[in-house]
Amino acid sequence: MGKETYTAALIIIGDEILSGRTLDKNTQYIAEKLNEVGVQLAEVRIISDDEAKIVGTVNELCAVHDYIFTTGGIGPTHDDITAESIAKAFGVKLELREDAYQCLVEYYDSEEDITEARKKMAYIPEGGALIPNPVSGAPGIHIGNVYVMAGVPRIMQAMMDHILPTLKGGASVISKTVEADCPESMVAEGLSAINNKYDTVSMGSYPKYQNGRFGTSLVLRSTDEVALDSAVNDVTVMVKEIERRMK
Amino acid sequence: MGKETYTAALIIIGDEILSGRTLDKNTQYIAEKLNEVGVQLAEVRIISDDEAKIVGTVNELCAVHDYIFTTGGIGPTHDDITAESIAKAFGVKLELREDAYQCLVEYYDSEEDITEARKKMAYIPEGGALIPNPVSGAPGIHIGNVYVMAGVPRIMQAMMDHILPTLKGGASVISKTVEADCPESMVAEGLSAINNKYDTVSMGSYPKYQNGRFGTSLVLRSTDEVALDSAVNDVTVMVKEIERRMK
Repeated sequence: MGKETYTAALIIIGDEILSGRTLDKNTQYIAEKLNEVGVQLAEVRIISDDEAKIVGTVNELCAVHDYIFTTGGIGPTHDDITAESIAKAFGVKLELREDAYQCLVEYYDSEEDITEARKKMAYIPEGGALIPNPVSGAPGIHIGNVYVMAGVPRIMQAMMDHILPTLKGGASVISKTVEADCPESMVAEGLSAINNKYDTVSMGSYPKYQNGRFGTSLVLRSTDEVALDSAVNDVTVMVKEIERRMK
Repeated sequence: MGKETYTAALIIIGDEILSGRTLDKNTQYIAEKLNEVGVQLAEVRIISDDEAKIVGTVNELCAVHDYIFTTGGIGPTHDDITAESIAKAFGVKLELREDAYQCLVEYYDSEEDITEARKKMAYIPEGGALIPNPVSGAPGIHIGNVYVMAGVPRIMQAMMDHILPTLKGGASVISKTVEADCPESMVAEGLSAINNKYDTVSMGSYPKYQNGRFGTSLVLRSTDEVALDSAVNDVTVMVKEIERRMK
């Protein structure tokens, strides 16, 4: 029997996110895809393109989670230091790999076009497997429980879709949302009571502010669909009653 | 004389981000605003609504950075445990505060409307100062070097704008971008050479993929505007030459 909960951490390597230049959309894609295969994204760290920081973060999280994903820093330029840092974290050499080099040759059509800068992308930590990159040739890397992916969303998504079927997960989490047309504070007490009634359903309450009005999304999550439906029913009855009283 | 670099960490407390339900846009806003006052966002952690995790993360990051910002978990519902967790991190009591309670009375117009759930938002860690919330009454909290803000972007932004003028920062970082109409690998070598020439300018290269073509944004950042302009000029000349050769 497998264990019940599988967790993952995501390490986003990118000064461009920390400077505010780029809005990170990779977290949402990865979180949703992992949910589908029963792996829970437990933690995300956004860190700078700094070797010591990458090595330390990878080592710390590797020990805690079933899977570690990284995005960013595997391109051809001087600030792309992820492959090198991952090699250091695992204490292995970074080596020019024939299979990775062939990925580049296929993508660029001719060996003449593999400049020194591009060749950098064929250096892989010793013992690592390649993750295919159908978009721009240069592969991602799988070593230990770490998956090293590109930062460009289109490429990251292709890599993630390749990785997903290979992951072992627990029961997948089903999520249902009840929308309440009232502020969070109106449903707080009732939600807390229903929450105490269901051990296997987690309930989150998310205020929203639209068109000058407060509303609340009540999100219920569980791996047990029967319990979930029963809890959703309780929450719906409670919300309807509150909305009726407010009219 | 003040020190040159001031750093901040952001802790996003929210299962809704980790589940993929909500796209985090707070990081980008906070990063940009901190840049303006010369504070560098050095690290972001997205963690779950879990007391031990919040306490551990706050304690770890407090010791490393000048400022810590948190978003999320200060509402009226059972899953809002940030204020309580911050009190634990600082080893102080959580107390019902008259000034915070008055914020709620003013917002809700009458004391009768302060239900038990709403009253929860007037509990503040001992010694904490309030951060005004012009949108929905319930205040944020400033204690030690930690600023506790709401997760709803509109409210967080109002709180951040209130905090900003009170922060001490270093020289603000100026950022300029040169767009190259070619893949990253074409500019890698030239960029690396220019990067070595300028000690005070950091250069990042960000591939983009649009309409089936690769392009690259070259972002140069420095507190020294003269050096920055000179480096931008060098990069522009290099990019123009590469684009000319590609035609």
